[in-house]
Amino acid sequence: METPAARLRARLDTARPAIAMSAHNALSAKLAAQAGFDAIWGSGFELSAAHAVPDASILSWETHLAAMRAMVEVQDAPLVADIDTGSGNAVSVAYLVPRYAAIGVAAVVMEDKTFPKDSSLRENARQELVRITEFQGKIEAARIEAGPLVIARTEALIAGLGQDEALRRGEAYAEAGADAVLIHSKQKAPDEIIAFCRAWSGRVPLVLVPTSYPQLSFADVAALGKVGLIICGNHAIRAAVGAMRDTFARILAEGGIGGVEAHIASVQDVFALQGDDRMRAIEKRFLR
Amino acid sequence: METPAARLRARLDTARPAIAMSAHNALSAKLAAQAGFDAIWGSGFELSAAHAVPDASILSWETHLAAMRAMVEVQDAPLVADIDTGSGNAVSVAYLVPRYAAIGVAAVVMEDKTFPKDSSLRENARQELVRITEFQGKIEAARIEAGPLVIARTEALIAGLGQDEALRRGEAYAEAGADAVLIHSKQKAPDEIIAFCRAWSGRVPLVLVPTSYPQLSFADVAALGKVGLIICGNHAIRAAVGAMRDTFARILAEGGIGGVEAHIASVQDVFALQGDDRMRAIEKRFLR
Amino acid sequence: METPAARLRARLDTARPAIAMSAHNALSAKLAAQAGFDAIWGSGFELSAAHAVPDASILSWETHLAAMRAMVEVQDAPLVADIDTGSGNAVSVAYLVPRYAAIGVAAVVMEDKTFPKDSSLRENARQELVRITEFQGKIEAARIEAGPLVIARTEALIAGLGQDEALRRGEAYAEAGADAVLIHSKQKAPDEIIAFCRAWSGRVPLVLVPTSYPQLSFADVAALGKVGLIICGNHAIRAAVGAMRDTFARILAEGGIGGVEAHIASVQDVFALQGDDRMRAIEKRFLR
Amino acid sequence: METPAARLRARLDTARPAIAMSAHNALSAKLAAQAGFDAIWGSGFELSAAHAVPDASILSWETHLAAMRAMVEVQDAPLVADIDTGSGNAVSVAYLVPRYAAIGVAAVVMEDKTFPKDSSLRENARQELVRITEFQGKIEAARIEAGPLVIARTEALIAGLGQDEALRRGEAYAEAGADAVLIHSKQKAPDEIIAFCRAWSGRVPLVLVPTSYPQLSFADVAALGKVGLIICGNHAIRAAVGAMRDTFARILAEGGIGGVEAHIASVQDVFALQGDDRMRAIEKRFLR
Repeated sequence: METPAARLRARLDTARPAIAMSAHNALSAKLAAQAGFDAIWGSGFELSAAHAVPDASILSWETHLAAMRAMVEVQDAPLVADIDTGSGNAVSVAYLVPRYAAIGVAAVVMEDKTFPKDSSLRENARQELVRITEFQGKIEAARIEAGPLVIARTEALIAGLGQDEALRRGEAYAEAGADAVLIHSKQKAPDEIIAFCRAWSGRVPLVLVPTSYPQLSFADVAALGKVGLIICGNHAIRAAVGAMRDTFARILAEGGIGGVEAHIASVQDVFALQGDDRMRAIEKRFLR
Repeated sequence: METPAARLRARLDTARPAIAMSAHNALSAKLAAQAGFDAIWGSGFELSAAHAVPDASILSWETHLAAMRAMVEVQDAPLVADIDTGSGNAVSVAYLVPRYAAIGVAAVVMEDKTFPKDSSLRENARQELVRITEFQGKIEAARIEAGPLVIARTEALIAGLGQDEALRRGEAYAEAGADAVLIHSKQKAPDEIIAFCRAWSGRVPLVLVPTSYPQLSFADVAALGKVGLIICGNHAIRAAVGAMRDTFARILAEGGIGGVEAHIASVQDVFALQGDDRMRAIEKRFLR
Repeated sequence: METPAARLRARLDTARPAIAMSAHNALSAKLAAQAGFDAIWGSGFELSAAHAVPDASILSWETHLAAMRAMVEVQDAPLVADIDTGSGNAVSVAYLVPRYAAIGVAAVVMEDKTFPKDSSLRENARQELVRITEFQGKIEAARIEAGPLVIARTEALIAGLGQDEALRRGEAYAEAGADAVLIHSKQKAPDEIIAFCRAWSGRVPLVLVPTSYPQLSFADVAALGKVGLIICGNHAIRAAVGAMRDTFARILAEGGIGGVEAHIASVQDVFALQGDDRMRAIEKRFLR
Repeated sequence: METPAARLRARLDTARPAIAMSAHNALSAKLAAQAGFDAIWGSGFELSAAHAVPDASILSWETHLAAMRAMVEVQDAPLVADIDTGSGNAVSVAYLVPRYAAIGVAAVVMEDKTFPKDSSLRENARQELVRITEFQGKIEAARIEAGPLVIARTEALIAGLGQDEALRRGEAYAEAGADAVLIHSKQKAPDEIIAFCRAWSGRVPLVLVPTSYPQLSFADVAALGKVGLIICGNHAIRAAVGAMRDTFARILAEGGIGGVEAHIASVQDVFALQGDDRMRAIEKRFLR
């Protein structure tokens, strides 16, 4: 049987990049899979937001791992797990990645910041990168037989170190065995990213997270010919926040729940997402 | 300092019932508090839905307790925790409720079904009630000094046992020390519930969850003069499901994330909900 | 590669029964494997005792599952997981067992008591059994492809229902697909158990837990020709309790830690059990 | 009612130091309290050993916190929680310590190493200290109103930085608000520690962990007049390891469990430690 990693690898097509949607719980992962996304992004930002705490290593990896496990249990799209910095140094990584492998994630994304991390898109965030050789050791520690793909994420552009450093790091990470390189940018225009992609050797596929430059379409990215995976980084939680806020305000304003009824998912709909059919089959077969 | 239970008790006003909004994670709880709800409903149904599993004692109480803890940590509205059947018998309850008390919940709602429970609104669900005296023992076991209010939920109407049995159970539960009685119905018209409220002695306040009869407004309920708390039972997750589904479909249809940008919460908005201000203050004060 | 279940099945030899030692954490499991036991008993009693709470479904299955995961991670002997009653009915079991399968347990042991359970050896304990057909449904729900062996434990003798009922249940459970039948007794003499073994059809191997009748040697059991697995049910925690108590008392009596030094394991010894060698290899290979 | 922190503070008597025993689970904590120790040491080393992994930030703080919670729930001696480096920087600490405060620990011990930590007593361990001002910020972040005492642990001697640096750090930490200073040494003779104690200003009480120099008696320490707390750092797990190993070997050698019966705690004894009396009272009062 094909491993989740093998299935994902087969989808990393620079002519037609895979599209991943972020998730913060099993339900959003299932909805993303049902919508037709190629993969699920097990986002640390979304999970932190769901807990209403900053995306700055406040949650422990155990909470993240449990969320990933729940996502894998209820849907079949390959899961790309956001392990941030790997929760420490290369030793930490060597103990951590087997735990993610054991639950069946297809890939881990590890970034070259120091622990504890800060959020990439936050203004005036603390961004400090580890040395290249140190991160190469972490990549090697993350590679395990029959384990998840290792996607190395460089924050060189985020940290303001420039394109040369970003390219140098990307190459060094591929050299160390990374299966893909995620290049992140917080510039409002896609120029920086486009330039990076054009300059990239193509040794391994790139991964983009176009949150800051949403105008760049999937087709635009495909035309660059270097990107194997596009991650929609935070759209599940942002959609949920807006809708909950509107629904909550309306219920209080209207003095009742009758008005929102037609604008939100039905209870039956939620039952279906909970796998009511599966439970009915179990009841019929085993309950006596 | 006033306990959360005392704060909630003061809000159980049958002339102007408190309104609680359901939550499935700390973020939805925070949004509900910000919207102005009087209390948060720590819903087992929503939490199960967030995990994409049925609301049938599939999740353990530990997962529920951890979610409640996270809700209490990030907002100040009193939390009404849904402990289903109390995870077993009266002994189970005696060990369980102190754990909820320790995290600062304002109330626990315990229902008179057998363990494992099934969802009240599900068609052809398994609904079996424990004996009245057994449930009285569970209520007594749940009452601890300076602990949460104990709200006894009877599923007599849900189980089709009729109004006399429902009233008998409500009275017996109040007799055993319940601070309020939650009466649940799945009839599409509010007649059954209205009749129950009218027949109720008023010994303790009632609690309603009008999911099935959304046309009954908060003012209608207040006019009955018997209800201290109205729970909006599942509107956070239902709002979130609808919005994620729409957003996911649109992104794939449009081939990019540019189109949804104006229709979902901004990243800055999410930063604020994560308590970015608090973290900035911490950084300024302690990071050197 | 052979599954843990297949490895354990091959060891269930009624001419030379496998011997399992109980464990309450990963360390005790590792010590048992190092000592040469054929399997580890992931005991609910020991885990409850380690938490200083009764073995009466007070801990959740999540705590038990996490302990089992930790045991599997650090040693290679097959793990026989004690899932008590399966945490509810057949539906509960259908959702629970795949979680144990996912972490690589070799077998689950499920007992025919009602939930919440009480400890088998406790005086005047609450012992109520579910109907035979109901438990057959639970056994069928526990059987999953390439999953753990299902060992059905009958408490008929513990509950005082007599040998005929015990045999009837054992046969019915084997009929429903149980891979082995655990027969438990709390009589101080082994006569009851010996009689049961002699009367047993041999359809599937039996499993014994000789806590109450310790005088029955492993050779005595082997001579019965019906038993595939002997479980030493609680000797890890009982050994630990005695030794901690002695060591603690001595330190306080002597007014220092010098006296106990030669009577307890050395710090170096503990380092070795923690896998210090493995970490040194990781450091050397990946830390830069 | 007195907080656990206040109770512990009252026991930090440099003329008659409090004695704390290490624990790795709730049971060992309860045994230590029953033996008469003044406090429980919620040891990261013991907890790591119980999981058979190195004491090098391999376990997450969530696992540690859950263990501490379990210890607080079953016994009354003040709990001194070992939070290692505080799981990151001062921001991490500001989010972490309130979680320990919420479960009722009496004190946290935080050390001035970098994250991820390595074990102090391990040969050739990685020992790197953070800057003094950085650690002062962490101490300030750990101090919360009505929260646990903050014990600052300096690893200056462990890291080979000499007594001047150790004293400078100790003073700086007291200056930043530490309630006590833990000074650790791995020298086999107590000379280094005795010299440190003599040179110490006495501004706040010292804390010792005499693992490496067990010949120094509690009376010897008291005579120094500077130490408020002596921690027996790992004797629970070391006692347990030795006893389990002996018991396991004997059972296999003897081919049965009969021989060890008189040398380990009885099952009845374990029932008592599990709080069987409390459960009997609950059953009698609430089960119907």
